Amino acid sequence: MIGLWLQDGKLELRDDLSHPEPGEGEAVVSVRQAGICNTDLELVRGYYPFNGVLGHEFVGVVEQAPPGYEHLAQQRVVGEINAVCGRCEACEAGRRSHCEKRTVLGIVGRHGAFAEVLTLPAENLHIVPDNLPDEAAVFTEPLAAALQIQQQVRLQPEDRVLIVGDGKLGQLIARTLRLAGTYLCVAGRHEAKLAMLADLDIDTVSVADRADAELARILRGFDVAVECTGNPGGFALARRALRPRGTLVLKSTYADDLTLDASSLVVDEITLVGSRCGPFAPALELLNSGKICVEELIADHYPLSAGLAAFEHAKRPGTLKILLQIS
Amino acid sequence: MIGLWLQDGKLELRDDLSHPEPGEGEAVVSVRQAGICNTDLELVRGYYPFNGVLGHEFVGVVEQAPPGYEHLAQQRVVGEINAVCGRCEACEAGRRSHCEKRTVLGIVGRHGAFAEVLTLPAENLHIVPDNLPDEAAVFTEPLAAALQIQQQVRLQPEDRVLIVGDGKLGQLIARTLRLAGTYLCVAGRHEAKLAMLADLDIDTVSVADRADAELARILRGFDVAVECTGNPGGFALARRALRPRGTLVLKSTYADDLTLDASSLVVDEITLVGSRCGPFAPALELLNSGKICVEELIADHYPLSAGLAAFEHAKRPGTLKILLQIS
Repeated sequence: MIGLWLQDGKLELRDDLSHPEPGEGEAVVSVRQAGICNTDLELVRGYYPFNGVLGHEFVGVVEQAPPGYEHLAQQRVVGEINAVCGRCEACEAGRRSHCEKRTVLGIVGRHGAFAEVLTLPAENLHIVPDNLPDEAAVFTEPLAAALQIQQQVRLQPEDRVLIVGDGKLGQLIARTLRLAGTYLCVAGRHEAKLAMLADLDIDTVSVADRADAELARILRGFDVAVECTGNPGGFALARRALRPRGTLVLKSTYADDLTLDASSLVVDEITLVGSRCGPFAPALELLNSGKICVEELIADHYPLSAGLAAFEHAKRPGTLKILLQIS
Repeated sequence: MIGLWLQDGKLELRDDLSHPEPGEGEAVVSVRQAGICNTDLELVRGYYPFNGVLGHEFVGVVEQAPPGYEHLAQQRVVGEINAVCGRCEACEAGRRSHCEKRTVLGIVGRHGAFAEVLTLPAENLHIVPDNLPDEAAVFTEPLAAALQIQQQVRLQPEDRVLIVGDGKLGQLIARTLRLAGTYLCVAGRHEAKLAMLADLDIDTVSVADRADAELARILRGFDVAVECTGNPGGFALARRALRPRGTLVLKSTYADDLTLDASSLVVDEITLVGSRCGPFAPALELLNSGKICVEELIADHYPLSAGLAAFEHAKRPGTLKILLQIS
């Protein structure tokens, strides 16, 4: 089969890949569409060591279901990306996405979704409602990650929430937090993307061409700030915008170590919350009900055979979601 | 009057200080005993700009009470250190210790307790129960700071809690968390101090002469870690000892910026909580009931006239609480 293979930091389109073999309890899924995420770009940049088929955002069809999951056969599905042991301390404590022995689709020890076929534990799969198009369903994984914020941070109705970053993740987070009913503002540097948010009646602040002092004056006193730029400037902006005892949610990984004024976190009693994967079922429900629309977040589609060009496009600063059409 | 005066990073014993004038709603307190805290040592090292009388841990007697607080006259009191405006956003939201216009006793814009007399808003004062000796009451402020952890972090009965640091603050925190009934372990580098904790049936781990790899093997999987060393090595140890989705409480300030692997906070979904001043009433109650004993934490007493020698003693690594006897 063909697939996008990362080997020692080099991405290749290969046509000689064998179908992955399903392990016990695993389903074989024929991939229909897959999305390119910033984590994929970071893997290609060599931030994390991974060799194999990339990709973890997908929608596909179950070609082969394991015993006990026969009802999944031929169903259209999305899949949670952490394949877990179910027996370690983290799994037994209910923190399955932190399983000590986990593999992660297209990220850690498991071939991913940028290929014709993938395997995942059947327990990870969620059936996609009939009326939900592939192009929306493929956003389930990043939308679930956005929803994880509200699993971790109890928002109060009177909270003022700032999102720093108007990119793919920031857009999805804005769409979820908008439904929480709190005051919401997004700070970003791309006019067109901020305009998309303004169309949803979300307040926006452009940080482009604005001096730090001016931004400090405009963006202050927030109860919660969500950092989704993955760069130190975004972190600094989010930190500075918080009131004392505010909460800073970190949704993005950083290329390098971050240097911060830890004393000010103590003096201002700031809480920092690292946040990763989230719940699939409510994400699917929000997409299916139309409460969250994602179609406008698609920048372009490429066939898998043009996967390398798709990555070049995705790498361009400011690009929204690039989808790979696979079958 | 005499007092310990910090001027441009130089500590002086002065005998020419005028009595501070009480502002509206403020009481005049004759100081009986005061404790030297690491924050005082840091102020002397010049980490924060402050000129004036140092000191914020004290017990004293009210010499003059403002209208409405006549019941405080001649009472023995301890005092909360943040003098607040009561009208700013933080005050109105109930976060008075974060008042935007606050002065802080012996730390920010207000002369402190290492002098014969101090002033504080009468609303900050708490009457010391008759049977509680000065030498215990003087620990109310740091004990309240220790209790702040449980105001911010909801401990579960099954939590395993690690304290990193066996110094003054670590000792107090250990005594408060011990009462929470969770499993507790203190990592430190001073045998005698770890022995004091072991006498309270608290598990201890000596980090002296132990390689990082060995410590990583011993100290792992904690639900909550409290960092009270104020050095990057202590932070790294506390961070590494946490399970995914664990909580790292920062109780100490740091001389320099801290460099950390923010991506690992995201991947492991770690929560960092900065923690500062805490509630005085329960601290006094714990001291008065004898549930927390602090006498063994006193390293030495000095008269205020020997205050410079007291500071030299307090600066020696591993020194527990140095008290100044003032009147």
